[in-house]
Order: sequence, then C-alpha cells, then structure tokens
Amino acid sequence: MTIGVVGGGQLGRMLALAGYPLGLEFLFLDPARDSPAGQIAPCLSGALDDRNLLRRLAERCEVLTFDWENVPASSLAGLSRATRIAPPPRALKDSQDRLLEKKLFDRLGIPTTRYAAVDSRADLLRAIQRIGLPGVLKTRRLGYDGKGQAVLRSAADVDRAGATIGAPSLYEEWVPFDFEVSILGARARRGEVVVYPLNGNVHVDGILRLTRAPFGTTGLQRRADAHLRRMLDYFRYVGVLNIEFFVRNGRLIANETAPRVHNSGHWTIEGAKTSQFENHLRAICGLPLGPTAARGHCAMINLIGNLPDTATLLAIPGAHLHDYGKRARPNRKLGHCTVVEASAMLRDRRARQVLNLVAPDVRISFRGAG
Amino acid sequence: MTIGVVGGGQLGRMLALAGYPLGLEFLFLDPARDSPAGQIAPCLSGALDDRNLLRRLAERCEVLTFDWENVPASSLAGLSRATRIAPPPRALKDSQDRLLEKKLFDRLGIPTTRYAAVDSRADLLRAIQRIGLPGVLKTRRLGYDGKGQAVLRSAADVDRAGATIGAPSLYEEWVPFDFEVSILGARARRGEVVVYPLNGNVHVDGILRLTRAPFGTTGLQRRADAHLRRMLDYFRYVGVLNIEFFVRNGRLIANETAPRVHNSGHWTIEGAKTSQFENHLRAICGLPLGPTAARGHCAMINLIGNLPDTATLLAIPGAHLHDYGKRARPNRKLGHCTVVEASAMLRDRRARQVLNLVAPDVRISFRGAG
Repeated sequence: MTIGVVGGGQLGRMLALAGYPLGLEFLFLDPARDSPAGQIAPCLSGALDDRNLLRRLAERCEVLTFDWENVPASSLAGLSRATRIAPPPRALKDSQDRLLEKKLFDRLGIPTTRYAAVDSRADLLRAIQRIGLPGVLKTRRLGYDGKGQAVLRSAADVDRAGATIGAPSLYEEWVPFDFEVSILGARARRGEVVVYPLNGNVHVDGILRLTRAPFGTTGLQRRADAHLRRMLDYFRYVGVLNIEFFVRNGRLIANETAPRVHNSGHWTIEGAKTSQFENHLRAICGLPLGPTAARGHCAMINLIGNLPDTATLLAIPGAHLHDYGKRARPNRKLGHCTVVEASAMLRDRRARQVLNLVAPDVRISFRGAG
Repeated sequence: MTIGVVGGGQLGRMLALAGYPLGLEFLFLDPARDSPAGQIAPCLSGALDDRNLLRRLAERCEVLTFDWENVPASSLAGLSRATRIAPPPRALKDSQDRLLEKKLFDRLGIPTTRYAAVDSRADLLRAIQRIGLPGVLKTRRLGYDGKGQAVLRSAADVDRAGATIGAPSLYEEWVPFDFEVSILGARARRGEVVVYPLNGNVHVDGILRLTRAPFGTTGLQRRADAHLRRMLDYFRYVGVLNIEFFVRNGRLIANETAPRVHNSGHWTIEGAKTSQFENHLRAICGLPLGPTAARGHCAMINLIGNLPDTATLLAIPGAHLHDYGKRARPNRKLGHCTVVEASAMLRDRRARQVLNLVAPDVRISFRGAG
C-alpha cells in the first residue's frame, strides 16, 4: 500500500521510518529537492498547494495524509474522488485558521483563551477594550513556532501593531500559565480511540525545546483526554490529533490544535509501546491501533539551529539521536534527542545533561508536575 | 557519512532504518533489483562478489560493512585501500568456512562440538569411527538456515552421504542439546565492548523460529559473555558479532559465529535500550556504543514462507511487525514480529498467540530457562 504525504519534512521522514517495517510504501510532495523525507523515500518536487501535483499524488496512493496541514481546502476539494484523505479535510480547515480553531474549541466546550477577530486598527482597539492588556496579536493563518505573533503590553505596542495589521488576525488574552501540556491520540476508521500520556512542554521564544512525558496529574490527564476524544469524534477523525493547553491553577486552557503527528509526541518513538507515527499510519490504513502506554519516564529535547557533535551526544547514556537531514539555520528544528529512564529524577538529570550540551545558553524551566 | 553495505537483505534494510535517525546515508550492493534494502536506499545492482562493483561501492562510502559475510576474502583484499572495512575481513574469513570456525573456537578456548574435516568418503568413514553416530555432515562454505547439512544416523545414511560429497565438508558430533542460546555484542574502534542479554533460540528444520531474551541463568550469561569478548578482542573486531551455542547439562557448546547483526538479535529493536543495528553502526562509525539492557521480557517470532494478515497480527496487543518487503516463498524469512512484556509469563503467552497465528502447524518448544 502506498501512502501519499503532502509535505516531506521531519514528520514525513519519521512517518516513513515507522511505516517501512509495516510494509508500507511512501510518496511525498515537497518543494525542496533534498527534503528530510525525500532523502529516504520517493518525492514529487513542487509547491504543497500545486493542484496538478496534488492530483498526481492522490492518483498514485491509496491514502493521502499530511506532514503540513495548511493545504488550502479548495486544493483538496477534488482529491477525495481519487483517493482516501485522512485526517479529514474539515479538521485541517478548522486548524488552519486561528479564528475557526477558537470557535471549534467553543463549540466542543473546550475552555480556551478569550479572543476577538481583528481585521483593522479599529477592531484591535475594540478587542483590547474588551479583553485587556497584555495580549497576543496573531495572524489567523500560517503561523508556527511563534511566527506571525506579537505580544502587546502597552499603548505603544498597540499603536505599532495597529499600524501594521496586514492580514486577518486574532487578538487573544495573554495567559500567565503555570506550565504547558499537550495531548495526542489517534482515532481509527471504525471509531476506536487511543490516547497517549500527557506531555509537559517547555517553549522558548515560541519554539518547543523540551517535552517530558508522562506529565501532570491524573486529573489533568483525564480532562485533556476527554477534550481530545470529543474533538476526534466530532470530526469522525482518522489519524493522530494533538491539542496544546496552558495550565493555570490546575485548569486546562486550550491554545491550539494540530491535525497531525506533533513535535511534542516525538518521545513516543522510543518511549511508548507504539509511536505516534505508527499509530497514525495504523489509523489511516484501517489497521488496529497499538497500545500507547509509556515505557518509562521520557524526555525529548529539540536540536535547534545546529546539531551537537554526534559522538558527544551519544556518549550520554541512553541518548537517542534523530537527525532530520536538514541544513543548519538559526531557529530551525534540525533533530531531536530522546531519553527514557526508570524514574522522573533520572530522566530530568539526563535531559539537563543533553540541554547543557545542545543549548547551554538557553534557560529551560523544569517546573510543573513531571 | 555514507555507509556501504555488501548485501541488501533484511539485515541491510534494518541497518538503514537504524542509521537514518543518526544522519547516516547508505549505499547497498545486491543482485536483486527489489532487494529489501534497495527499496528504501540507493543500491548498486550486481553480484555480491563482483570486484568492480565492490570497488565502486568502496570508493563511494566512508565505511564498508556487510549484510552477507560470504564475500571471498580475495575480493575484499584491495578494498581496504579505498575505504575502512568493518568488521575486519579476517573475521569474515574465519566464519565463512566451518573448519576455520571450529579451529577459531579451539584457539580461543571456546568449547565446541568434536569435528573432522571431510573431503572424501574415506575421510567420512574415519571421522565417524572417531566421533561416532549420529552426526552432522555440513559443507564448509555457504550453508545457512540448515542448508548444506545432512544428519547421519545409520550406516545407510553414511553410504548415501559418502557417495555425494561434492564440496569440502565437516563432520560434527550430533549434540542432543537441552536448548540453544546465542549472544551478541559490539566492539568499538577504541576497544570498548558492550554485550546484550543472552537469547534463547528455537530452530525448526534448521530455521530460527523463536527467540526469547533475556534468557538463561546468570552463569550462562557470564560464560557466554566471556567467550564473546575473547573473540571480539582476538580480531580487534569493530561492529556486532554473534556466537550461537548449544546448552547441555548447563554447559555451553559453540555451534557457529556470524560477524554481523543476527536474526536472534532482532528483538533489540524494541526490546533493548539500543538496537543491535544502531550499535553496529555506532561501532563502525567510531561513535560511542549505546546501553544494551533489555527493556522488558522480549520474544521475536520469525514470519516464514508467508506473512499473516497485517490487521490480525497487529490486533495482538503490543505486537510489532517488521515486514522485509520480500516476495513470499516456502521457508523464506519474510519478516518478524516482536513483543516486549513486563513478565516472562505474559511474554510467552503473547509469543504463543503470535505463533498460533503465523505458524499454527509448527510445534515450538518453550523449554529452557526464559
């Protein structure tokens, strides 16, 4: 069976690495000639929203899935006649637009930040009057890793931001959270759902640096699990879905959702009984889902901007390297490192050892219930 | 760094899958156009002992290694000027020939079966006089999975075998063993050695069906470990090495050795802290070796002749499938399935469940200390 994948980044690469042992074949679509996935699987070369290439991809695969979820819904419209698409385009559409995403949270009763749509300076002023300062102004589409966001703290920030609103945006309250978590789960074609242990995430400058799992209290896990299942069932979803939350005073506040495997689930490759990548593939191929229990106390550290010396990293006992085959560039995710240990204390010690090597200048807080 | 691999079978395929996360690239040499490794990595197409292709392979890689160890030593002779070769050709040479292999065991003080070289009917009769019946007549070269072997129990067997000796052979005593084990370890370029927990192996008709690990007593582990280290150091070995033993009345009797990753170590992909494939690559690339401890009670079941229905296999909780991408053929190893459980009892129960699905007609004995 051939899996078509829109986007050939590291997520696609790790999908292929999880799928080859299942006897699956892959065909990617990516603009880069040396994309991470294209280095290890066949790849069509071109824009991710190129309708002709999307059609060729769809015609050559049994299932079409995504490493990048921002394919315009209009480009996907005709493809479902040529192949099965999973996750459902409806879920992609809602996650592509921060306003639709907020409305989705509201509709499903998932607590989220207060927000207002902002298309002009006047909208922004009204939004701030209602929601207050500080707040975050975000473009509605195509933001990731903190891009397309500005924090507004003062009248001067508001003036500056108000003058430059160029795209449909969203103004959100600033949440002084205690820590951040995310939850991942998969839904199979027949409705079976599996959910992974909660991830505790640390972002620095908008980019994920550290994930620890299992994380948080059983109460948090139970509530996040319920929110995720509600969304999975709402979309009659097929594949892996992620929701990120702020946690403040023990309350979950949904921040965003991604209709795909997610950076905060990379620890599952070594750390869970079945990886998020394998469960995504099992789901979209109509296979039974695998168990999601953690195999220990796990930490995933992103390798950002440049890779450490391989020998030095692998000299840390139990350090697992995932090099995505990308060229070094500031703030670019080039790989990650996972450790799985018998106790949370040992896990944190190893994670600090890795962080001291790969990001000695970045201050990472280990707060939260790990 | 590009790893050149002679042979593109399932071992090569799993080497590539372990190597991509380390940022390694691969180039294989294999006669089949759709070899298991060639499906997921670049591959030169041609005979494994083709000197010109071996030279091209060597010139294009930083390290040359093997998925198939029977490359004639003469074909390897010149390659070490073009690239580094690991494991050392000397270790390949001794394992290619059952007589040299026996002499190696003798030289290193590793107990083995009584044996005699047999090139003629007269040799065979002399050997039987000295060693007795029953015994096993094996070709010295190119035997695997029970091929090129005949068990001699009676005078009639001897007459038949004696008339057909066509190649240099070896006559060995028949060992009525209690069970079979194997041990795997890796040696790095600087001499660092790591050893995996002992594997308990069950062969049926000469083909490995089931491996369980960790297996056996600490005494067996300690002695097998010492034998393996002696051989690793003797060759100044670099990479993963395997020795198989019969166990009788608690004694280890070496049967054979393989200078490569081995079928009995496939459980290490999910079941050990670092897989045999990753440690082989770490060793030959001059990287620090990874920890080898088991992550639970593991069983590996070979999928032979035909593959089970994927959905039925994956419905067994915790079953991990490894499909090698090979065409079905009687007695051909097409894949394997691994389970990792919290207790030996649960592990054996899951292994039986898998065996009942994939080999319902084959009687597998679970005896031995698992």
